[in-house]
Amino acid sequence: MSSISAAVGPMTPQLLDGNSLYRRVMITPSACGHNCLFLAHLGDWTWEAISTMSHTDIFREKNEDGDPVYPSAFYLRVCGSPAIQMHHFTFGDVIDVVTSVFNFGSQSLLVLHRVERAPEDGAPPRPVDPSEFHERRDENRLYVQLVNRWIARSRKTSNEELFKSAPERFATRHLPVLPDRYSPRLSYDLARRAETFHDVASPDYEPVVEEFAVDYTIDAARDLNGVGLVYFASFQSIVDSALLKLWRHLGRDVHSFINRVVRDRQAVILSNAEIDSDLRLILRSWRRRDDPRQEVFNVVIRHPARDRAVVVSTLQIQSEAPIHASV
Amino acid sequence: MSSISAAVGPMTPQLLDGNSLYRRVMITPSACGHNCLFLAHLGDWTWEAISTMSHTDIFREKNEDGDPVYPSAFYLRVCGSPAIQMHHFTFGDVIDVVTSVFNFGSQSLLVLHRVERAPEDGAPPRPVDPSEFHERRDENRLYVQLVNRWIARSRKTSNEELFKSAPERFATRHLPVLPDRYSPRLSYDLARRAETFHDVASPDYEPVVEEFAVDYTIDAARDLNGVGLVYFASFQSIVDSALLKLWRHLGRDVHSFINRVVRDRQAVILSNAEIDSDLRLILRSWRRRDDPRQEVFNVVIRHPARDRAVVVSTLQIQSEAPIHASV
Repeated sequence: MSSISAAVGPMTPQLLDGNSLYRRVMITPSACGHNCLFLAHLGDWTWEAISTMSHTDIFREKNEDGDPVYPSAFYLRVCGSPAIQMHHFTFGDVIDVVTSVFNFGSQSLLVLHRVERAPEDGAPPRPVDPSEFHERRDENRLYVQLVNRWIARSRKTSNEELFKSAPERFATRHLPVLPDRYSPRLSYDLARRAETFHDVASPDYEPVVEEFAVDYTIDAARDLNGVGLVYFASFQSIVDSALLKLWRHLGRDVHSFINRVVRDRQAVILSNAEIDSDLRLILRSWRRRDDPRQEVFNVVIRHPARDRAVVVSTLQIQSEAPIHASV
Repeated sequence: MSSISAAVGPMTPQLLDGNSLYRRVMITPSACGHNCLFLAHLGDWTWEAISTMSHTDIFREKNEDGDPVYPSAFYLRVCGSPAIQMHHFTFGDVIDVVTSVFNFGSQSLLVLHRVERAPEDGAPPRPVDPSEFHERRDENRLYVQLVNRWIARSRKTSNEELFKSAPERFATRHLPVLPDRYSPRLSYDLARRAETFHDVASPDYEPVVEEFAVDYTIDAARDLNGVGLVYFASFQSIVDSALLKLWRHLGRDVHSFINRVVRDRQAVILSNAEIDSDLRLILRSWRRRDDPRQEVFNVVIRHPARDRAVVVSTLQIQSEAPIHASV
């Protein structure tokens, strides 16, 4: 057998330093589009970075009871610009992905990705650090931050009542600690209580949509991952589908939805859901008083029967045209 | 930078012979689950095999008019057994994928994949040929056959009226021709006319569901690939979602849906659809008179406004329990 040069498929990731990986990826159809497939691949790269940096075998870890544990996405933040959007990558795009992993407590890790179109000069990228993400963001780069927590099922056949459960050999003490000022903890704790990441008291914004509800039943033909949990990328697709419904309800066309620029997308995933759960999404929106093209959409996935939020997600979106009508 | 051993991600594919590739893959979350993510990855491997074997740069090809062309899935067949199902792969499974490419006319190629769990002994696999697929199928192997046709858009902003358009350098004469007796052409031509792959006159089957309709609007937040066409894997998800709705309508639970064994899944994709098309799925079913657990489900995705079929799909499914009620 002779080896061929791969037209498709990632290079082997390389270590940049003690907590960073780098890979160059050619985007395939399964990793792009107006969907969450790119996010799904980011999830894979997150897990690989966790596995490498925390000395775990990510697909085989078990807890003390012998039950499988998974480093589940608990918090997600994606920051983009008009120059780079996760749903704009297309077949054959070549991107550089740098991933850095930070100590974030005994059960969790914080993972920061920097994604950019591969430069012509092929210069090796530098590691990404939180100060770049928070203070010196580059408009040509997409930044993705995740907090992943090890979880296990409390009952084999249920997706409810997952609990925190790290494998014994999960090693984090050698990893850099995220400086407190860059921790998303305060932000997602507030979002959990307020059911939004948006400062609803901000004088810079005025409300547009007070409440728009979308019912959704978990789709066992689309939403479940390989261990029967609702996939973290599916939750984001469910959010986006509901947003599209609001978009159309407001009289906007689908092309303007496709061309939306998501400046900032945050989500906290508070629980999972059963494989046939009836959920309800509650959407609200605001716009900047001085620039109505700058909008904030809040999407809460609720479990009405249990009267609790499953996902709280807030998106800052720059649209082609503002919403004129209040509903 | 030092190279690390990849915990996640495929090996470089290797040439087995003049028309076959082999790869070993560790299944990641983005490639498995109760969804069509594994199928999406099979699509990538199909394109890579086409690119390698037909001497094309699959992501960059254009036609004489300078418009981009894509080797679009026109026909799909997946054959499985209780031992191996595409929706049963889970995190960390290691599989061997052998892919063989056959000459199938001036605009198309036929691609045959054989998928199996990687054997302990690590023996290198043999190429897969059509006689194995049609006459000596192994119950421990999943077989996937695709016919991909080069297509282009006739209008830049529309997904309707795609036309056959191969790139100039598309080379197939060096590839083995599929023997006529193994060609799916007769089968999908009949299916296109009859709107089913099932022999509705067969005395071995009795009808169960005469007609069950599901309305579906293309979801621009989930269904579109990186070039704005409805993704071939999304069409299969749309089929499966409608099947689940029928399943529940028949009083069956979601667990039995998840545990279904798809023996044979065929689909012919007759056209694409606009990014906001209102579609209607028409489902019918039959069961074997001598074994009612053996069912056939037919799903036609129709475009009512244009009065034509978009996708015709027929699935042979072995269920845990038969349907007792006719509807």
